[in-house]
Amino acid sequence: MKKCFGIDLGGTTVKMGLFEENGVVLEKWEIPTRTEENGKYILSDIAKAVLDKMAEKGLNGEDIVGAGIGIPGPVMPDGYVSACVNLGWRNVNPGKGLSDLLGGISVCVGNDANVAALGEQWQGGGKGHDSVAAVTLGTGLGCGIILDGKIVSGSRGVAGELGHVTVNRDETEKCNCGNRGCLEFYASATGIARLAKRHLAASDEASVLRGLEKITAKDVVDAAKAGDALADSVLEESMNWLAQGLSFVTLVVDPEVFVVGGGVSKAGDFLLDKLRRHYNHYTVMTATKPEIRVATLGNDAGIYGAARMVLNM
Amino acid sequence: MKKCFGIDLGGTTVKMGLFEENGVVLEKWEIPTRTEENGKYILSDIAKAVLDKMAEKGLNGEDIVGAGIGIPGPVMPDGYVSACVNLGWRNVNPGKGLSDLLGGISVCVGNDANVAALGEQWQGGGKGHDSVAAVTLGTGLGCGIILDGKIVSGSRGVAGELGHVTVNRDETEKCNCGNRGCLEFYASATGIARLAKRHLAASDEASVLRGLEKITAKDVVDAAKAGDALADSVLEESMNWLAQGLSFVTLVVDPEVFVVGGGVSKAGDFLLDKLRRHYNHYTVMTATKPEIRVATLGNDAGIYGAARMVLNM
Repeated sequence: MKKCFGIDLGGTTVKMGLFEENGVVLEKWEIPTRTEENGKYILSDIAKAVLDKMAEKGLNGEDIVGAGIGIPGPVMPDGYVSACVNLGWRNVNPGKGLSDLLGGISVCVGNDANVAALGEQWQGGGKGHDSVAAVTLGTGLGCGIILDGKIVSGSRGVAGELGHVTVNRDETEKCNCGNRGCLEFYASATGIARLAKRHLAASDEASVLRGLEKITAKDVVDAAKAGDALADSVLEESMNWLAQGLSFVTLVVDPEVFVVGGGVSKAGDFLLDKLRRHYNHYTVMTATKPEIRVATLGNDAGIYGAARMVLNM
Repeated sequence: MKKCFGIDLGGTTVKMGLFEENGVVLEKWEIPTRTEENGKYILSDIAKAVLDKMAEKGLNGEDIVGAGIGIPGPVMPDGYVSACVNLGWRNVNPGKGLSDLLGGISVCVGNDANVAALGEQWQGGGKGHDSVAAVTLGTGLGCGIILDGKIVSGSRGVAGELGHVTVNRDETEKCNCGNRGCLEFYASATGIARLAKRHLAASDEASVLRGLEKITAKDVVDAAKAGDALADSVLEESMNWLAQGLSFVTLVVDPEVFVVGGGVSKAGDFLLDKLRRHYNHYTVMTATKPEIRVATLGNDAGIYGAARMVLNM
């Protein structure tokens, strides 16, 4: 069976995986991301890691379908990257660059959130379904849309930027993007902590959260699970906003399944049951509802998706 | 050059077109839609019209690529229609039925709003672009999403149901769908008339609209164009809601172009300039913006899209 490489290029480390064509990962490892000098060493470091692994395993070019790579920024449909702040890159074509360094093997490049969504669709929470929307609740809200087993990246690379749909026109504070009332302002780890502070300030209701110096999303989940009513209302509000956002995805592309990942998703069905209930409210017009599942690949979603991307080519 | 038929099946008439493969329409005609006895005559009427036209033009099966047909209701990915209220149909597979009546030529079936969007993408306002979102402002708000030149119909047939995204959680009146605050409640011919009544009731501001017994969207557009400030503020509000809805489409699938059709779109750039300005507000995070254009095929969009659908097969 032929093999391929899945590479998840982040601002601190490069996660790498050697895969069988059928989705079995044979080996996983990491190398540091050297961002100095505008990231000029990144591709050659990756190429060396790939070539070393091929030598170690006795693989040559014909054994390899190619390499997929997810990068933390927008990728144009032709693979061009105009700016990738976390890596220091400007005006590069990393796919072509890496392919040249690897003696011409096929290389595919995609945005990391989209690539992780493809991983979850292929071997994770969305396995068995061709059309999947995968949402990651971390510092922000990431989202990738997979239709017919392929990433939808959009004509400007902003497909799946669900974190910045305006759900609340009445918001007064600004989101990082410059707008107000974006979904990720409420539905993310940061958003849950923000809502907790707001709920605490808005009432005198008793809550274990009042004793904490710095409130995290995990604190809120833990408190809610332990029966803290204020913490529970914070999660209700956050999942209500998220449900509204997911309903937009349904009414635009109608995926079979939603997959929710990221640190916050560790709260599992305790959180997702709230999300499902609110989701049903925003989609009264659809007789049947998509499943909303927890992501299963964790930090490996990126290498799986990157591998799948090159196998899909 | 081979030919094909494009059929737009409505509740009152069936619009039909004979097309060249390159998109040139050779002939257009209509037959009545006989909805009696649960629409049992509809497909045989259509088949007779197709066969008569083939005989008239001296065409036989080998000259025809097939027939596409748009129907006013949801169509499952396998062509199955569980209910089409306007036609009286329940649990039918109209594509298979029509193909059998036509001696086995290929037949494709799609939802009429999606099919019309495909027509606009192929030969109308979106010509020259592969990914287009087409919005129709009529009694309601219809929308079709075209990616890579293909209709996105979704796993439950609700892709493009943009009329029912919740844009205003504070709405107190119910939409037809049972929910509150749906986009089409504000952004449609009916929606514009509704907002006009609300604006009139909310102030004593002078307006030519006060003299009218029944206010239509056209009255509002005409008054605004003539300098009526209240009418203008009604259109501003309606286009602000629509802009928010279009921004959802961008942040989910990021089409190259938006095409706006339906009766209301006859207001042209006077209306679309308002839409463009509000749209830019909701998409501050995207450096470049898609064009927002007026639809050009009018009532023929359905037959064009139906023809394209079968040519795409």
